[in-house]
Amino acid sequence: MLRGTTRMPIDATNPLLSDRDVDFLLYDVHRADALCALPAFAHHDRGTFDLTVQTLRRLARTLLFPSLRTLDATPPALDADGTVKLHPTMARIFAALADAGVLSATRPLDVGGQQLPSLVSTAANSYLCAANASAAGLAMLTTEAAHLLESFGTPWLRETFMAPLYEGRFTGTMCLTEPHAGSSLGDITTRARPLADGTWRLTGSKIFISGGEHDLTENIVHLVLARIEGAPEGSRGVSLFCVPKRRPEGAAWVDNDVRCAGVLHKIGWRALPSVALNFGEGDDCVAWLVGSPGRGLAQMFQMMNAARIGVGGSAAAVAYVAFRESVLYAQSRPQGRAPGARDAQGPQVPIVAHADVRRMLLRQKAIAEGALSLVLATARQHDLAEHGDDDAVRTRARRLLDLLTPVAKTFPAERGFEANALAVQVHGGYGYTSEYLPELWMRDQKLNSIHEGTTGIQALDLLGRKVVAGGGEALAIWRDELVATSADARAVGVNPAWCDALDAAADAVSALTLELGARGLSGDVDGMLAHATDYLDLFATVCVAWQWLAQAAAAQRRLDDAPGDAFYEGKLLAAQYWFGTELPRIDHLARLCREGEDSFVRLRTDQL
Amino acid sequence: MLRGTTRMPIDATNPLLSDRDVDFLLYDVHRADALCALPAFAHHDRGTFDLTVQTLRRLARTLLFPSLRTLDATPPALDADGTVKLHPTMARIFAALADAGVLSATRPLDVGGQQLPSLVSTAANSYLCAANASAAGLAMLTTEAAHLLESFGTPWLRETFMAPLYEGRFTGTMCLTEPHAGSSLGDITTRARPLADGTWRLTGSKIFISGGEHDLTENIVHLVLARIEGAPEGSRGVSLFCVPKRRPEGAAWVDNDVRCAGVLHKIGWRALPSVALNFGEGDDCVAWLVGSPGRGLAQMFQMMNAARIGVGGSAAAVAYVAFRESVLYAQSRPQGRAPGARDAQGPQVPIVAHADVRRMLLRQKAIAEGALSLVLATARQHDLAEHGDDDAVRTRARRLLDLLTPVAKTFPAERGFEANALAVQVHGGYGYTSEYLPELWMRDQKLNSIHEGTTGIQALDLLGRKVVAGGGEALAIWRDELVATSADARAVGVNPAWCDALDAAADAVSALTLELGARGLSGDVDGMLAHATDYLDLFATVCVAWQWLAQAAAAQRRLDDAPGDAFYEGKLLAAQYWFGTELPRIDHLARLCREGEDSFVRLRTDQL
Repeated sequence: MLRGTTRMPIDATNPLLSDRDVDFLLYDVHRADALCALPAFAHHDRGTFDLTVQTLRRLARTLLFPSLRTLDATPPALDADGTVKLHPTMARIFAALADAGVLSATRPLDVGGQQLPSLVSTAANSYLCAANASAAGLAMLTTEAAHLLESFGTPWLRETFMAPLYEGRFTGTMCLTEPHAGSSLGDITTRARPLADGTWRLTGSKIFISGGEHDLTENIVHLVLARIEGAPEGSRGVSLFCVPKRRPEGAAWVDNDVRCAGVLHKIGWRALPSVALNFGEGDDCVAWLVGSPGRGLAQMFQMMNAARIGVGGSAAAVAYVAFRESVLYAQSRPQGRAPGARDAQGPQVPIVAHADVRRMLLRQKAIAEGALSLVLATARQHDLAEHGDDDAVRTRARRLLDLLTPVAKTFPAERGFEANALAVQVHGGYGYTSEYLPELWMRDQKLNSIHEGTTGIQALDLLGRKVVAGGGEALAIWRDELVATSADARAVGVNPAWCDALDAAADAVSALTLELGARGLSGDVDGMLAHATDYLDLFATVCVAWQWLAQAAAAQRRLDDAPGDAFYEGKLLAAQYWFGTELPRIDHLARLCREGEDSFVRLRTDQL
Repeated sequence: MLRGTTRMPIDATNPLLSDRDVDFLLYDVHRADALCALPAFAHHDRGTFDLTVQTLRRLARTLLFPSLRTLDATPPALDADGTVKLHPTMARIFAALADAGVLSATRPLDVGGQQLPSLVSTAANSYLCAANASAAGLAMLTTEAAHLLESFGTPWLRETFMAPLYEGRFTGTMCLTEPHAGSSLGDITTRARPLADGTWRLTGSKIFISGGEHDLTENIVHLVLARIEGAPEGSRGVSLFCVPKRRPEGAAWVDNDVRCAGVLHKIGWRALPSVALNFGEGDDCVAWLVGSPGRGLAQMFQMMNAARIGVGGSAAAVAYVAFRESVLYAQSRPQGRAPGARDAQGPQVPIVAHADVRRMLLRQKAIAEGALSLVLATARQHDLAEHGDDDAVRTRARRLLDLLTPVAKTFPAERGFEANALAVQVHGGYGYTSEYLPELWMRDQKLNSIHEGTTGIQALDLLGRKVVAGGGEALAIWRDELVATSADARAVGVNPAWCDALDAAADAVSALTLELGARGLSGDVDGMLAHATDYLDLFATVCVAWQWLAQAAAAQRRLDDAPGDAFYEGKLLAAQYWFGTELPRIDHLARLCREGEDSFVRLRTDQL
């Protein structure tokens, strides 16, 4: 704990995630093996899934996690020559991830991928996120930049930029935010001017570009939102461009006039620089249009949606690893005695013996494992939306995926932060020192409620769009899923009170949504949306209850064969916690949404 | 926002606290001027109170706040020679605080103090805490170390150590925690051996000692809990010692064998080193007994209680300053348009125009101003407990003070952290960069739920001791206070629904406490205390509703004279928020306490 040393020894090594839990979630709860019945995944079986998980698990434990503190403590800076040099370990990590096929794991065989279900890839990547969120983030960005070119790029763009991205020879970025336009992307001003050869010249500035400059790879491929000269104002005038740091000219790769103007001093994800970029300062920045003019935002949503689920997965993993660390610490740290014990001479007990510490641990568990399960449920819908048997299956899954995306992004970020703060609390005074890791995870976590769309934005997306889209079509599908889960849990013998509670919650969400939707339709959009964030909190709490009931059912099934197995009993206790402590909160949240408590709505700035 | 620069300019300078609000809380809500009717404060009037507030306000704004980021960014380290050198600005700050009389402000005239009410001193100190929590913390520790000597020290100790502490020539510490004993002080092992001359030789190690080593002053006076050789085990064997860094020998001050073994890398309060100390490595550490043998813990509670209220005040201030920064940012940052507006060409609106941003701001306001009011209410009871007219008044105030102390410590720390996280959120992407201050305040705040007794410890103190003490005597007094506030608010014309709600909440707390107390008396102590933290959350939520109703009444009174005054209208809106959004949470919390949801109680370690 003293200056010069790094970290107090702990008896056991943090496993990042519980392997048994990941297996349980993948196969018992989310039936990954059932996906192999789909033609797209017919070349896979549980063996190849397990191999993927084991490979990333090992990389996470042996390469990413051991360097986590070092990479956090030595964030990259902008050098005088305009370059940003990362810690050399980042290059080793990125190369190892590329070698392991992480970058193209879910992509089709014909682009060199493994065509792995997102469900499996998300579970495997969770180990990477738990071990080092920034390193895992760089891989995710690279995959999704390539994926945009795969979906919308010309054959030449796919060959020139997509292939090296999937191979890990280049990395990718998403360039959306400008200094004056973050959440409000219709306001971007970066401009593209057509050239005679069909390419474009780009000028403008972007900020908060993760991985926007570094020395890991020979090139960086920026997927940039910009406005074609003369395009209409607002979102409809925004197009998507591919803008490499170095562009091909004949056989050579030459500088493409993309300059790093500065590195932000972030409090988390510190291994991955977030930078400001200037395009075309020398009017020599060549860009290639990706897809159709004016479709930039719509196309970019492919990457943004993936990034949102990616952020949710990372947030769940960061909460999860801190939870595991808390468990280890609480078992190894002696302090005090049981409230009943009056024997001051006796030995101290490990703090896990104190009820309040167990309360904090179980809350962390319920949040972290519930969040991971929700993210995996969302990833599974992604698989069905892309590769389901027929149109009806795919459409249904797409609706559900769209609905769940803002929830899978926000719940792990918001409640994960609470879990991460509890991890600090469990560590007592050591928790607020950087000799221990919980404070690092808390910092890493804080980014997740902001980047890729703040919680407020996600809430408007959920209530203003997703649950009311198609006359509530997605919501009806969601409700069917919950009812099916509760029916299954009931059949298996899970506590019927929990099943009833989930059914009632699904009804309550439907009724509330109908009422709020009607308010919007009647013209009172502000009234409908005033409590959107409370609505998101409510909706997410019900979604996680759904996930805990699914886990309880799977656990109960196993307990019938293996009575007394502590792992499954723990799942039931976490479910009990969620149904007893968290789900009842929705009554109050629903009342806020419905009655529209209007203090902050009426509030004027001069009253603050 | 780029490397090399420090901070984005903001249109207005953060006032730290709203001056108008401090005046309102001091005089309209907590009637500081009425304290002048007490003989102890008869030499004061509103003029001297205002002068104190203005002096510290100016120091906070001109000296402490401007160096906040710099001091945070350059934390002190242990030098090879065993010393810890602070940033030179810390010496300037400490000297300025001493010059301003901060260290002895509340202490009696006969020890050189101003004999100022705690209420006024706490309000004035809030500016210091908002401007730099660590610098203010050092002053508080010094005052309270001296105060221990004032209360329990011999005339020689008072002359030799107390006087220089109050003058700011020395600083003070409290040395409680040992590596294996933090929350569990009965387990300390530091030993004291009697010497022939009546002094003692001390050996042992302490950790987490704030200000335990530095170069600000010529000496440091440690108030140390230690065990006299042969003393009984447990708390009853703990005595209090005065252990200076340098001790007097004749006319000289010589080294007293107190060694700094290391500096903790804290995430907050970084300007004030928290160190590990070894006493008597060379068996030459002389100590002076303070007060009676075996009374160490009881005596130290004078300092611990003051420190707990001090932590609460600091936590409230840190939430408050971040709230003010959020208001400034939200007014100056344009982004997006109103949900109804469909004019993409129009100018962007400041983010304060978005309802969800106002929701976050009003929640911050309600927490920060509610917390500050609660801390001031507690300070006022301290004044009455010390200086009330007669025994009955003093006893009543002492009961209430004891009851409120764990609440005044915990609510600002726990909900303040939520407010500080909201300040980061309001700042969007800039919030998670260290170019802006909210992330610093969030780090500073995180210490407050841990140091001076964790939230779990405070919860056990409240439910296990304070509310049941004397057959619920303190609770009955507390209830009378709430009922009086609601009667006053009703008479002034405040929304009667709020008054009814506070009355009902006071009834609910009484009934719940009776039920839990009976459970404890019947032998089920574990069942009584299992949800102690939920009980504290509930109790604090009601306390802050009480404070908001008191503020609403004071505001309503003023509005009758000055209709439409935005400041008072804002107070009513914050009260509306608290009664509409926060207070209703207590139903669920009470159910948890009463029904004893037992998931975490039954949880075994192997189930995690």
